[in-house]
Amino acid sequence: MSGGLSRRGLLGGGLAAGGVALAAGGYAAARLGEDAAAGGGEPASYPFRGQRQAGIVTAAQDRLHFAAFDVVTDDRDELVELLRLWTDAAERMVQGQSAGPVGAVNGAQNLPPDDTGEALDLPPSRLTLTIGFGPGLFEHPELGDRFGLSDRRPEALADLPHFPADVLDPARSGGDLCVQACADDPQVAVHAVRNLARIGFGTVSVRWSQLGFGRTSTTTTSQSTPRNLFGFKDGTMNVRAEETAALDEHVWVGADDDAAGGWLAGGSYLVARRIAMTIEVWDRQQLGEQEQSIGRFKGSGGPLSGGAEDAQPDFDLQGSDGPIMPVDSHVAVVHPDRFGGARMLRRGYNFVDGSTDVGGLDAGLFFIAFVRDPRTHFIPLQTEMARNDRLMEYLRFTSSALFAVPPGVREGEFVGQALFA
Amino acid sequence: MSGGLSRRGLLGGGLAAGGVALAAGGYAAARLGEDAAAGGGEPASYPFRGQRQAGIVTAAQDRLHFAAFDVVTDDRDELVELLRLWTDAAERMVQGQSAGPVGAVNGAQNLPPDDTGEALDLPPSRLTLTIGFGPGLFEHPELGDRFGLSDRRPEALADLPHFPADVLDPARSGGDLCVQACADDPQVAVHAVRNLARIGFGTVSVRWSQLGFGRTSTTTTSQSTPRNLFGFKDGTMNVRAEETAALDEHVWVGADDDAAGGWLAGGSYLVARRIAMTIEVWDRQQLGEQEQSIGRFKGSGGPLSGGAEDAQPDFDLQGSDGPIMPVDSHVAVVHPDRFGGARMLRRGYNFVDGSTDVGGLDAGLFFIAFVRDPRTHFIPLQTEMARNDRLMEYLRFTSSALFAVPPGVREGEFVGQALFA
Repeated sequence: MSGGLSRRGLLGGGLAAGGVALAAGGYAAARLGEDAAAGGGEPASYPFRGQRQAGIVTAAQDRLHFAAFDVVTDDRDELVELLRLWTDAAERMVQGQSAGPVGAVNGAQNLPPDDTGEALDLPPSRLTLTIGFGPGLFEHPELGDRFGLSDRRPEALADLPHFPADVLDPARSGGDLCVQACADDPQVAVHAVRNLARIGFGTVSVRWSQLGFGRTSTTTTSQSTPRNLFGFKDGTMNVRAEETAALDEHVWVGADDDAAGGWLAGGSYLVARRIAMTIEVWDRQQLGEQEQSIGRFKGSGGPLSGGAEDAQPDFDLQGSDGPIMPVDSHVAVVHPDRFGGARMLRRGYNFVDGSTDVGGLDAGLFFIAFVRDPRTHFIPLQTEMARNDRLMEYLRFTSSALFAVPPGVREGEFVGQALFA
Repeated sequence: MSGGLSRRGLLGGGLAAGGVALAAGGYAAARLGEDAAAGGGEPASYPFRGQRQAGIVTAAQDRLHFAAFDVVTDDRDELVELLRLWTDAAERMVQGQSAGPVGAVNGAQNLPPDDTGEALDLPPSRLTLTIGFGPGLFEHPELGDRFGLSDRRPEALADLPHFPADVLDPARSGGDLCVQACADDPQVAVHAVRNLARIGFGTVSVRWSQLGFGRTSTTTTSQSTPRNLFGFKDGTMNVRAEETAALDEHVWVGADDDAAGGWLAGGSYLVARRIAMTIEVWDRQQLGEQEQSIGRFKGSGGPLSGGAEDAQPDFDLQGSDGPIMPVDSHVAVVHPDRFGGARMLRRGYNFVDGSTDVGGLDAGLFFIAFVRDPRTHFIPLQTEMARNDRLMEYLRFTSSALFAVPPGVREGEFVGQALFA
């Protein structure tokens, strides 16, 4: 808690010696228990400032609220001021404090509160807030170069191409800014996004947002592999926090990667894709067809060619009908060996957004990946997948966005400050 | 676990001695910790069978997946068979088992699995499944009395009237059947609804569904009062599990309440209303206006007339401008004293369903209440609220439904069996 005031401490008006330990009542105590249990030795909160932004290699929390924003001003100073205010609020909220210094309940009666209050009794819940910049901040298709940033745009930061089988909803694609809020408690993630939107009123407006649950990947070796809504383990091949060399090779933007994008060195690119699954069609497929589509056994998660979950698939192993690993199975189509060894750090979530018009669940996987360069680490894979992956029969891509995620925020700086230097 | 096979036990093919304790790996262990912590002494699972259906007085879990179904057959036997299958699957899933006896991974390669698999590694997570019958099961507006049940319809089970300020979406209102799935883990709640939908393919189709988080009420005295997305404590006046006399008076249908509805004795009525909040408008209101609208202090939750959260409001206490408790405050307008003492057992959840067209969050409260009779315990309150409540300025009712919830399911019976006797 960094010795600061907790939301609860502010509520009582007193100093929060010990921070979250002050949270009183059975409910908060239960949440604290959850907090202590859910991360397998992870701390109760993560600082906003550091060498990297939190929420990338951070042990994947279980809940997501992702929001993309349109910047509705053309005033560079207003944009910078927003990033200052967001930095300040983010630093406070990830520590379990209110978004503003006064809080939801201690302000003047004739002013709106500087926090919305729904997280008052809740612990930090391992909230991370990861902020990214979309292509439209540099060169907007309609509004042009509003902020004098076009010569700072990295070449890799361009709208993703249209892929075969994309059925994108423009209203929930793209965006000038993004906030990825991850936490153990959805109410804490929602509270954070909502307060950043509130703070940004008049400067930004929410373009689209997405809730998710049940992390579909592991970002550290201490986490086991969860299952996506196909019922299969997902993210087995993920780059993990402990693989520092692989992170440098596949996730973090290098200092020499792009002259214009020098401000992005040490950061990453965030690819977001909303993947709707035809759940009801999938559920009526034979177990064999499901496993052939993925290329893994549903139970163990091991490749069909044999071995445990982490075994390398043997694409040469022959069965009576050809390769044991079908050439159009998901594992075969997107295997790193086919793309010069390119790997990703995936950090997606399952979602259910109510129902479809035809009596099914509007459900799927909100794919998030962090990569060093989308041109080498995402676009080729997605193209291959869209063309050749047997799994595509059960997928529809309905949203797509790309953001540059600046490196971590040092003391006294605001997020992305180097871009405006 | 009732000595049965856990999902995990089935996966390994062995007997699950100890049930959830078999769940292996850091992820499942973390979920187990969460499970143990989240309920304040509640058991790790609740049986499906009992005197009452679980999910009403059960200590409110933190996550919801609510689904309303259309029955798409006119064959009474098919409907009865569905209720049998649902009973069997529900009994298994609340114990942390697969929806079907074979499970997601142990079936024949040439058959679809009888469980979808995404909850394979997860504990029971205190899942409850509460099943209700809508008016259309008895007398459908278009399909008539398909099942020969019209003379068994309780008078109280009729579509709710149109209330002032209702802007209902017909596509997410009503329904012939409902399933309220509550759990500590959204993936477990989603898995249950999805598998009931899968089992019902051809007999029912999902009409609408709603996810929720952050329970907005307390159903036992051991829970403290949570906050809704207005940032205020919600459900302070709720009927709780320990108030057995109040439950008999306000929640459980009496044996003599309705001759046609004798099968419903010991059950209840479930009112569901999706209440969209104009979050961004609310967030720009002064703290004083917010507290005057609710009639409570935002911090403590106590009434503006003084006292702690559980203090009775003093509507006669005068300030310089009239009553301290504004006559149009939410607390004043819906106070039980104005409705013959009628109280409800509320069990709603917060929701965020992405974004609105105008750059805001599509967020609010999914209201669920269990009442003995909606004609005395809901309709008068909702009418008054819609007409006179200052809070209405910040609310839009977008969905509405009413279901009769049969009593608990005894050994050897299926849910609602008395209706078909």
